[in-house]
Amino acid sequence: MAYSKEIDGILKAKRISVGDGARITTSGVVYEGLLMPRIEVGDDNVLILKLQSGYNIGLEYSSSMQIEKMEANAFSEKPTPRYSLKKSSLPKISLIATGGTIASKIDYRLGGVKSLLEPQEICQAMPELVNVISFKSLLSPFKIFSENMSPVEWQKIAALAAKELNSDIKGLVITHGTDTLHFTSAALSFMLKNLCKPVALVGAQRSPDRGSFDGAMNMACAAHYLLSDAAEVAIVMHATSSDDYCYAIRGTKVRKMHTSRRDAFRPVNDLPLAKIYSNGRTEFLKKNYRKRSAGKVVADTAFEKKVALLKAYPGSEPGLVDFLIDKKYKGIVVEATALGQIPTFTFDKKNSWLPQIKRAVEEGIIVAFATQCLYGRTNPFVYETAREMYRLGVIYCEDMLPEVAYVKLGWVLGHTRKKEEVRKLMLTSLAGEINPMLTEEEFLI
Amino acid sequence: MAYSKEIDGILKAKRISVGDGARITTSGVVYEGLLMPRIEVGDDNVLILKLQSGYNIGLEYSSSMQIEKMEANAFSEKPTPRYSLKKSSLPKISLIATGGTIASKIDYRLGGVKSLLEPQEICQAMPELVNVISFKSLLSPFKIFSENMSPVEWQKIAALAAKELNSDIKGLVITHGTDTLHFTSAALSFMLKNLCKPVALVGAQRSPDRGSFDGAMNMACAAHYLLSDAAEVAIVMHATSSDDYCYAIRGTKVRKMHTSRRDAFRPVNDLPLAKIYSNGRTEFLKKNYRKRSAGKVVADTAFEKKVALLKAYPGSEPGLVDFLIDKKYKGIVVEATALGQIPTFTFDKKNSWLPQIKRAVEEGIIVAFATQCLYGRTNPFVYETAREMYRLGVIYCEDMLPEVAYVKLGWVLGHTRKKEEVRKLMLTSLAGEINPMLTEEEFLI
Repeated sequence: MAYSKEIDGILKAKRISVGDGARITTSGVVYEGLLMPRIEVGDDNVLILKLQSGYNIGLEYSSSMQIEKMEANAFSEKPTPRYSLKKSSLPKISLIATGGTIASKIDYRLGGVKSLLEPQEICQAMPELVNVISFKSLLSPFKIFSENMSPVEWQKIAALAAKELNSDIKGLVITHGTDTLHFTSAALSFMLKNLCKPVALVGAQRSPDRGSFDGAMNMACAAHYLLSDAAEVAIVMHATSSDDYCYAIRGTKVRKMHTSRRDAFRPVNDLPLAKIYSNGRTEFLKKNYRKRSAGKVVADTAFEKKVALLKAYPGSEPGLVDFLIDKKYKGIVVEATALGQIPTFTFDKKNSWLPQIKRAVEEGIIVAFATQCLYGRTNPFVYETAREMYRLGVIYCEDMLPEVAYVKLGWVLGHTRKKEEVRKLMLTSLAGEINPMLTEEEFLI
Repeated sequence: MAYSKEIDGILKAKRISVGDGARITTSGVVYEGLLMPRIEVGDDNVLILKLQSGYNIGLEYSSSMQIEKMEANAFSEKPTPRYSLKKSSLPKISLIATGGTIASKIDYRLGGVKSLLEPQEICQAMPELVNVISFKSLLSPFKIFSENMSPVEWQKIAALAAKELNSDIKGLVITHGTDTLHFTSAALSFMLKNLCKPVALVGAQRSPDRGSFDGAMNMACAAHYLLSDAAEVAIVMHATSSDDYCYAIRGTKVRKMHTSRRDAFRPVNDLPLAKIYSNGRTEFLKKNYRKRSAGKVVADTAFEKKVALLKAYPGSEPGLVDFLIDKKYKGIVVEATALGQIPTFTFDKKNSWLPQIKRAVEEGIIVAFATQCLYGRTNPFVYETAREMYRLGVIYCEDMLPEVAYVKLGWVLGHTRKKEEVRKLMLTSLAGEINPMLTEEEFLI
């Protein structure tokens, strides 16, 4: 799409093309960046400039605007820090790089984050690691943004992870996009059986070309986590919006709670496992965690993909449940309201979910309820309608996050279809996903 | 369902039936409560006792257990405080009671919360109000638990609310179950146009028969909110887990974030409007809010019910979008990942949502993306796949909660089907639902 005729004329006169550097002065403010193509549905009278921060800005054209061409090399990439993967006496870890912002490069010509780095390049962006650990293996089974992950990728990562963990490394770090990082951490928590070494999942909320890049510190803290005595899958990311320390949060009790903040990953219904400073100082906040031990990790990756997560809310469509039944789904996790309710009666009769839930149960589908509140515990014994669900055989997922209940049900159904076994497994904490006693402080950490 | 033969024999011998009072001593601890029927799927060797706190407890039977019958009247309801709705010179407000825990009564015979009170009874449970306000009208269009609310009920409440607000009252309080209180508060925020008086939505997380009942203090704080100079729809509930003060939170920026805590309602991407102590001290935390004025409130309740809310996640079923298209849905709000992504490519090709989103847009359905992170803002300009969605015409809902985006899209589509008008309305803050500049402190309040 082109800019307006007026803007187009001026750009041509100044010999500025898309991808060139431009300095635009408007209302006394100077903006320097690369000229971006117009967004198709956007206003054709707004110039789009990619600032050096990585952000795009739209500037409404006015005749008083000053537009100058800049040398493009003013915006070239930063020099790469020197880093060699030479042999070292430092503790060995392995890296599995799967993609995401932590492994991303801004494409200054096209604008936007697009390209993904090789694992070697990722390490080069993190000079902090040189004095902490050395790498045994740098692996990359695929490079995708995390919104494109699916259970197939979880299985691939788990298989590779188990293999690496059974070598002579201290622990394993996995770099990953942040959008679905908490789904993968939950999946690995269930899939890596007999875990005897720490596994850290690390992402970045800001790309490596920005001053506020968080991936390097997250990676340094992750490296320190891998040297600890824990043997849990944890997400290691900024704990605060400063560069002071990270949290290692158990893989089944963590959720991305903010679109853009560096401290977006928060524990839900749990304390963080540990507080880790980039200088290596590590304070465990939980007393009970799985400890490092001898043994062999098993990748137990069987997963039933015909499991869905659906939200019940006022005016929600119960026909979606029928659709899943007809599509031969084996499990449905409902994000129920609060303690675990669904619409069971409304003046608009079409809205009740009761007939569909009954049908699903009758057809042998496992139905589990988690709370859309996210924090707190479900309880089928307070209200009569929830008791009815419970009597039908609906599994109330305690204080499990809906996302974790979904991942867990897929994993459990990959192993057994026997109703009572499924219930028992769902209500047994296999990887810390059920916190038997929530404390006052485990809310909104 | 019956208890085990052994328990049954003992109960018969002691002449204790379900619903009778019982004192059970086991392992040195004494439990007093009402004997409940066995839960059907539960262990038949566990006695269920409803304690006076309202909670049920399961006690595993052992032969060393002591079981005694108690007088049933030890568990009768508390005496009702005296309260008359006599004429008074105090400021007048009206009450619309819709049901929920705040209006609930424990049924000690059957166990569990079941019965719902008349508005007069609700007021009687709240003696704190006597010295603050008087009631013009006590109304109850229906009595249902809030999980059973639907847009039809929102419309009824809005119509009744507008009528009351246009009488000589200072403000209106609506009592409501907490499960979907935030959906109703969002709906009323859009439906009550030209709002010139305060509207408080109030619920309770604990039932009136419990010592920790929060409804009375919430109601007292709501009454004080109604005497303030604000003219906004707000949820007024406990701000902390103590009985110190409540928050009044804007109806479009609030969410139930905990299943059971009394301070479950939290602002998301916003500060609370005000901090209100039960003694009437009111501190406004937001500077910009809609002020009380003269004028006439209009109930603008047109609502398109064919709008759905769907979550995109790893392994999610894009066929659900096809189902909604086939069912002639007019709008779909996607709880997208983080900044506003959906699966667009996976090695398991079936998981991409791109073809379905394209189809929906082509068939004239409005597609809007909100973030499943809840906190933060969507941004289609960072990643290429989101740009593609944006170019297709997907509306990125800024920092609106998914629930609010759903309610708003239903309301907007009730008024216009013109694509550009819908987009414009969705991206204009009509009732404070878009916060143009998020601040550091508006995360996890």
